[in-house]
Amino acid sequence: MARFETIRLAHGSGGRLSADLIRDVFVAAFANGPLAALTDAAVVDNPGGRLAIATDSHAVHPWRFPGGDIGRLAVAGTVNDLAVMGAQPRYLSAAFILEEGFRLDHLAEVARSMKATADEVGIVIVAGDTKVVERGKGDGIFINTTGVGFVPQGRDIGPHRLAAGDELLVNGTLGDHGLAVLAARQGLDAGPELRSDVAPLHGLVAALLEAVPEVRFMRDLTRGGLAAVANEMVTDRPFGVRLRDADLPLSADVAAMSEMLGIDPLLVANEGKLIVAVPPDRAEAALDALRAHPLGRGAARVGDLVEQPAGRAVVETAYGSHRLLEMPVEEQLPRIC
Amino acid sequence: MARFETIRLAHGSGGRLSADLIRDVFVAAFANGPLAALTDAAVVDNPGGRLAIATDSHAVHPWRFPGGDIGRLAVAGTVNDLAVMGAQPRYLSAAFILEEGFRLDHLAEVARSMKATADEVGIVIVAGDTKVVERGKGDGIFINTTGVGFVPQGRDIGPHRLAAGDELLVNGTLGDHGLAVLAARQGLDAGPELRSDVAPLHGLVAALLEAVPEVRFMRDLTRGGLAAVANEMVTDRPFGVRLRDADLPLSADVAAMSEMLGIDPLLVANEGKLIVAVPPDRAEAALDALRAHPLGRGAARVGDLVEQPAGRAVVETAYGSHRLLEMPVEEQLPRIC
Repeated sequence: MARFETIRLAHGSGGRLSADLIRDVFVAAFANGPLAALTDAAVVDNPGGRLAIATDSHAVHPWRFPGGDIGRLAVAGTVNDLAVMGAQPRYLSAAFILEEGFRLDHLAEVARSMKATADEVGIVIVAGDTKVVERGKGDGIFINTTGVGFVPQGRDIGPHRLAAGDELLVNGTLGDHGLAVLAARQGLDAGPELRSDVAPLHGLVAALLEAVPEVRFMRDLTRGGLAAVANEMVTDRPFGVRLRDADLPLSADVAAMSEMLGIDPLLVANEGKLIVAVPPDRAEAALDALRAHPLGRGAARVGDLVEQPAGRAVVETAYGSHRLLEMPVEEQLPRIC
Repeated sequence: MARFETIRLAHGSGGRLSADLIRDVFVAAFANGPLAALTDAAVVDNPGGRLAIATDSHAVHPWRFPGGDIGRLAVAGTVNDLAVMGAQPRYLSAAFILEEGFRLDHLAEVARSMKATADEVGIVIVAGDTKVVERGKGDGIFINTTGVGFVPQGRDIGPHRLAAGDELLVNGTLGDHGLAVLAARQGLDAGPELRSDVAPLHGLVAALLEAVPEVRFMRDLTRGGLAAVANEMVTDRPFGVRLRDADLPLSADVAAMSEMLGIDPLLVANEGKLIVAVPPDRAEAALDALRAHPLGRGAARVGDLVEQPAGRAVVETAYGSHRLLEMPVEEQLPRIC
């Protein structure tokens, strides 16, 4: 390790430098038995229940931003994909594509951030891989994480359970992650309050499901923001999403920056926010459960599923008019996750 | 799909173009229920047994080469990592990092190749992800696959079971993959016989374990080739690897090209070859089982584990002298997988 300050092609060769890198950076940071065995595949206990599998590659630029970094993002993103399906996150793989010249101390920082986030969750990084590409054929660091979780017997959460009348909630302010990354990338002075919301939501979800097992559907609001998820929920379904503009939580910083840049914050990525659908008589209980958790203090009831217009998402303004919330088509903010 | 011939940044936005790409390329090619549900995580049956988890990112350049392509490689590579741990491969995730400008018909070709290879194995691609990076920040296509398999009750295969006296076998010629990719990259005229050996080895392994359940250890001979694996097997262990030069299978093309380029074929990557360690009284049975399978016709007994020199790998020449087979340090052939 001490011999080199930056990644060389040989760190991906499968030879001695690969072995040094794995031992000195990844095994050192991730410290656990199945990984340290360095076998081709980790062999681990199977606690039973249905399996949930989620994968996400992360190419966020810059790799460090206010409120987080690519390591925390890579763990939290996949954990959240498992959690919203009602799964208990358990095992994680981590695969790195590094560009020649990436700094080793930065890589070690990312690995420590991954481990710290994994420890928050209680998920274990059991398998890994490192590839190195030549300078100019990558962009510093890309990370894939794939997570395995277990869905307890009898739990059934998903889009098939959505029905007209369901109430919709979110767990806090929207658009923070995307705008914080954009500000970092462009060197905009966005104020000290604008930070990514990146966080693992497994604990919030567990508390919610404990209080309200009737939850029908959850999804984290990543690329494409609330607009993409709202449209995915209703496309080709016999109901639509109706959101109340005045109830959608936005921080003052996000509201101001969105206004200034002409960006709709409902299309902006979040990394610690989810939407929840519950039967109407459980909406207050769900709101209480979310607000009782540190990651849900800003939770709000934001709308419902309506019979008309079916297949569409609309936002109702304070004046009673409606605007169509369309599925985003083009990229507003590339490389946001 | 028809609207664009190449990947645009918007194909990674989480918006409508992302959805089109997923539907028209990935769901169309991979065609299965858990994937088509497009939920955050696939929720699938858990057949029981211990879990095996393996991850690999693939950045091979060029993405198409004699005998295979990055799609076949990405599936076979991870399947082989599961198989050599004695696991039955079952579920696969596939995550793509695409460079702006990559051709959509090439992406569709890669997806079909992945599906064809997955079908050979009986593994199901249940989860996926696509990210797009700007032109010049990637290199066409990178693919991560992560596999989940199940290890039957009572099966125990791994480096902890190796012991002095074990016989070593390989299932065929060495170095074909690495040199075929190198020839394709450099435009070398290597002859029509030089092709990558990329193949999923789950069937060969199953046949071997059926005939010889006493198998102690297997590993596929990828980056760093036989030299890297031989060294990993014995580092800090009370035994060494002794290989017999005359028994190591090489094709005439690989022998000639290695000679010409000054490359040791024992350090070159394979993608359809493995090493097997068995107790000596089971070596003939293991050889018979390997040779009876189409992917093991060129199998050979190539050496054994010896008490001295412990911790080292040596090659015994036809004249009785020994040369040290060192762990490769620097990169011979970058971007080979």
